[in-house]
Amino acid sequence: MGSINHKFLPIDLSHHINAKSKARHPSPLKDIIRFMGRDGMISLAGGLPHPSLFPVERANFECQPPYTEPSIETPLVQLDIKRGLDGGRLDLTEFLQYGSGAGNQKLVSLVRELTERMHAPPCEHEYLLHPGNTNAWSKVVGLLCEDNDYVIVDEFTYPSAQALWIPLGIRASPVLADEQGMSATGLRKMLTNWDETSMGQRRPRLLYLVPVGSNPTGVTISAQRRREIYEVCVEFDIIIVEDDPYYCLQFPKSTRKEQTFAPVSTNKFLESLIPSFLSMDTQGRVIRLESFSKTLFPGLRLGFFVANSVFTERLLRVTEVETQDPAGLSQALTLALFQNWGIDGYLTWLQGLQFQYGTRRDWLVAAFKDLFRVLPAAKSPVPQAQGNVACILDSEGKLLPVFSYIEPEAGMFVWAKFYFHGVRRFIELRDGKIEDPEQAFAAELWETLAEQLVLLTPGSYYHAWQGHDKTSTAARGADPESAFFRFSFASPSKEQIEEGVRRIKSVVGQFWDGST
Amino acid sequence: MGSINHKFLPIDLSHHINAKSKARHPSPLKDIIRFMGRDGMISLAGGLPHPSLFPVERANFECQPPYTEPSIETPLVQLDIKRGLDGGRLDLTEFLQYGSGAGNQKLVSLVRELTERMHAPPCEHEYLLHPGNTNAWSKVVGLLCEDNDYVIVDEFTYPSAQALWIPLGIRASPVLADEQGMSATGLRKMLTNWDETSMGQRRPRLLYLVPVGSNPTGVTISAQRRREIYEVCVEFDIIIVEDDPYYCLQFPKSTRKEQTFAPVSTNKFLESLIPSFLSMDTQGRVIRLESFSKTLFPGLRLGFFVANSVFTERLLRVTEVETQDPAGLSQALTLALFQNWGIDGYLTWLQGLQFQYGTRRDWLVAAFKDLFRVLPAAKSPVPQAQGNVACILDSEGKLLPVFSYIEPEAGMFVWAKFYFHGVRRFIELRDGKIEDPEQAFAAELWETLAEQLVLLTPGSYYHAWQGHDKTSTAARGADPESAFFRFSFASPSKEQIEEGVRRIKSVVGQFWDGST
Repeated sequence: MGSINHKFLPIDLSHHINAKSKARHPSPLKDIIRFMGRDGMISLAGGLPHPSLFPVERANFECQPPYTEPSIETPLVQLDIKRGLDGGRLDLTEFLQYGSGAGNQKLVSLVRELTERMHAPPCEHEYLLHPGNTNAWSKVVGLLCEDNDYVIVDEFTYPSAQALWIPLGIRASPVLADEQGMSATGLRKMLTNWDETSMGQRRPRLLYLVPVGSNPTGVTISAQRRREIYEVCVEFDIIIVEDDPYYCLQFPKSTRKEQTFAPVSTNKFLESLIPSFLSMDTQGRVIRLESFSKTLFPGLRLGFFVANSVFTERLLRVTEVETQDPAGLSQALTLALFQNWGIDGYLTWLQGLQFQYGTRRDWLVAAFKDLFRVLPAAKSPVPQAQGNVACILDSEGKLLPVFSYIEPEAGMFVWAKFYFHGVRRFIELRDGKIEDPEQAFAAELWETLAEQLVLLTPGSYYHAWQGHDKTSTAARGADPESAFFRFSFASPSKEQIEEGVRRIKSVVGQFWDGST
Repeated sequence: MGSINHKFLPIDLSHHINAKSKARHPSPLKDIIRFMGRDGMISLAGGLPHPSLFPVERANFECQPPYTEPSIETPLVQLDIKRGLDGGRLDLTEFLQYGSGAGNQKLVSLVRELTERMHAPPCEHEYLLHPGNTNAWSKVVGLLCEDNDYVIVDEFTYPSAQALWIPLGIRASPVLADEQGMSATGLRKMLTNWDETSMGQRRPRLLYLVPVGSNPTGVTISAQRRREIYEVCVEFDIIIVEDDPYYCLQFPKSTRKEQTFAPVSTNKFLESLIPSFLSMDTQGRVIRLESFSKTLFPGLRLGFFVANSVFTERLLRVTEVETQDPAGLSQALTLALFQNWGIDGYLTWLQGLQFQYGTRRDWLVAAFKDLFRVLPAAKSPVPQAQGNVACILDSEGKLLPVFSYIEPEAGMFVWAKFYFHGVRRFIELRDGKIEDPEQAFAAELWETLAEQLVLLTPGSYYHAWQGHDKTSTAARGADPESAFFRFSFASPSKEQIEEGVRRIKSVVGQFWDGST
């Protein structure tokens, strides 16, 4: 990389590595590797099985081309991967055999090139393959967190990410967000006011974010907000983990017009993407988790770290003893596909995905608008709400707010805040003095929806975990008389989305007492 | 399985699960899964990407048949896996999409059937896929060990397995072995005499074994010894982790005759295999780690747990947050291969592997015998040695022992104990009062061998880790005037093995002062 010479060197962040990770022994194989490549060397040292005894001789994959013009029949792409070196093509044997923990070197070079094109990181970063962001995050927690630490997350965060660290006694220190994403002011305030004595723990040093099309909120952090957050992280010496599986699924605001898809130039496409935290990282404090799960397919179990080398060196050590490198066929297919498509082809493929997911978002938002009265929050009965408010009319023709949502511009999810004010069954529960009437009513509502054959994901799955004493609506300090549900628009068809929203409308009608 | 009704129920072993693993939250998705399958359900709850947006349409693998008769041309097996259901064949889409953490159900059924055929476990066990034994072991340590515990291992053990737990402050409590494997008497003695006060920790509760063709020692634990060890484990409430990647690579004692390969009946083959710990496990205290790395190929990153359901339930929880299920193409290829070969075909394929690795073992042992004077230990100058002793003649025609080894009947390795008694350079180092003359001389010897273009693996890689204060030969209580090296016969050719041993002989000649 010619550009590497112009990059910033990372600052020393080695104090972030936790005690266990520091205590990992270096790999003893270094001594052997030092001699391995010598001409004429006979190695009786290897522990590898003999490759002639692997039963697979050839792998052939039929794949879509990056873009198919409507009306023109385009043949499928054939990826043919055989044993033995064959004119610069991939040798299947390499992918059947044990690899180094770091992953296939050609693939590592490729993801570096891809990242340079997409993010042009200003600081020197290293690259390391991993078997998916779930695993990547578990390795990062193992690298940086001590037991009983606090981790900074959004108020609503990805449940599997925190299910990993809850057993370690780790708790969330959540920061509120608005339509621009996590509040930098809120973040600074939390860190400034951190009191080790009353909290019983050191100030958090790790910020976990799904910054584009967040799961569950669908929110994408704005460029300006990113710069503010990065600044706070520099000020308070925070490591930012950018878990960004939806980065390539950004799409424009919805319109009611039917769109057709035609790709734009790669440069125009790249310019349309929001700048990542990695692209702002002049100090080496961003650990970016990249995944091919949402852009190629999840069964690949393949992604990569982009991080400060002080972190990737330790991550490689843990990779050697916890997972080894990602599955060989996944690496081979990905490399062969990139060799065929080229990076430009991949970026064109991503545009097609954006169009598809954008269209699906449009279907859901259109269904909301067709079946509810949707108003901008400011003009709605809940002016302090964010985004839009979906209402029904009560028997007197008055607007009753049902839920508010922010229209997502990336990802797969719409996060809806349901308002229970005046809902008879909710009032009954509250007046019955049960402990958490919001969650009790949300559970009843969810169950009724499911009985009426429409499934949403309960918002409670995504509550940042602050400990056993902070799970109820009141204890979390959450808004009373409300609860959240997550809509996914990724999988259902247009008809299913419309019918699903119709069923929701009908259940809402029963509970909200409006005329339907 | 009809036989399940006749199986023992596991005893309650839940007290072995460590505090962190007990604290894992149950998956909240159970509520959703309860409703998922209802007729007419519209799910807006899923988080899965849309399968029409995965670029792969078809995967075709060309594989070896299980057995090829010499002189008969046998066509390669074609495994063709397409999108969409196609007359009972595999649907590629299932393997491209996210799977449940437990792995594809057809594959889980298959490995259950395979295990019933091979091991007929007498107790009810559950099955769970994992991405290779390295990962499986890391999950077992996460399940059972508390920080600073002791783990029981062989005196020489697999370095990656312990590199995982060293950072947790865990130490090895090693037990000596002989040609039959770990000493059950030694194990009982260690456990009986365990003194919590002087050791500073509770008695170990976890026994880690590579019971067939152990890496590095090549030893296979005898059936009788296994029964004795299992009995001790019942007595002292120990969980046995049977990490058994070489189970299928068992072969008969070496002969000098050229062999040709012809498979025997599946039943005869299965009878020839040593009974596993799993096959003796009437209580559910064996956790068996199975891998396809050595029988199909390592790049698959695919294996499975066989264990008590109290353990597999917690292992599934950690799988959900740490790795998710193994890579889809690996699962698809394995299933398709088994559909084509059948379990009998797979067992025939294993016989071919046994023959191949057995032949390679023969090459190494023959090279020892051709280039050294090899005697049974009892008739050698080191009668207390185990197995055979390879000697050279000194200038007066006297036998000088160089190394002893036990001829392995499984796996890929020969473990050689080199004797330094009377070796001038060793005596120089020892008289120079350096701290660990054995390891210092072993390092010099290794480096000289490497300079002469032959690599062995230093035995020091495999020393059970007993803490920073117990790394030298004397502190470990190891035999003075000796050190170990591991020979691998899996990868090099016959010619390389012969030439490699010749180079070793030549270096030995310089140091041992014998006539060559």
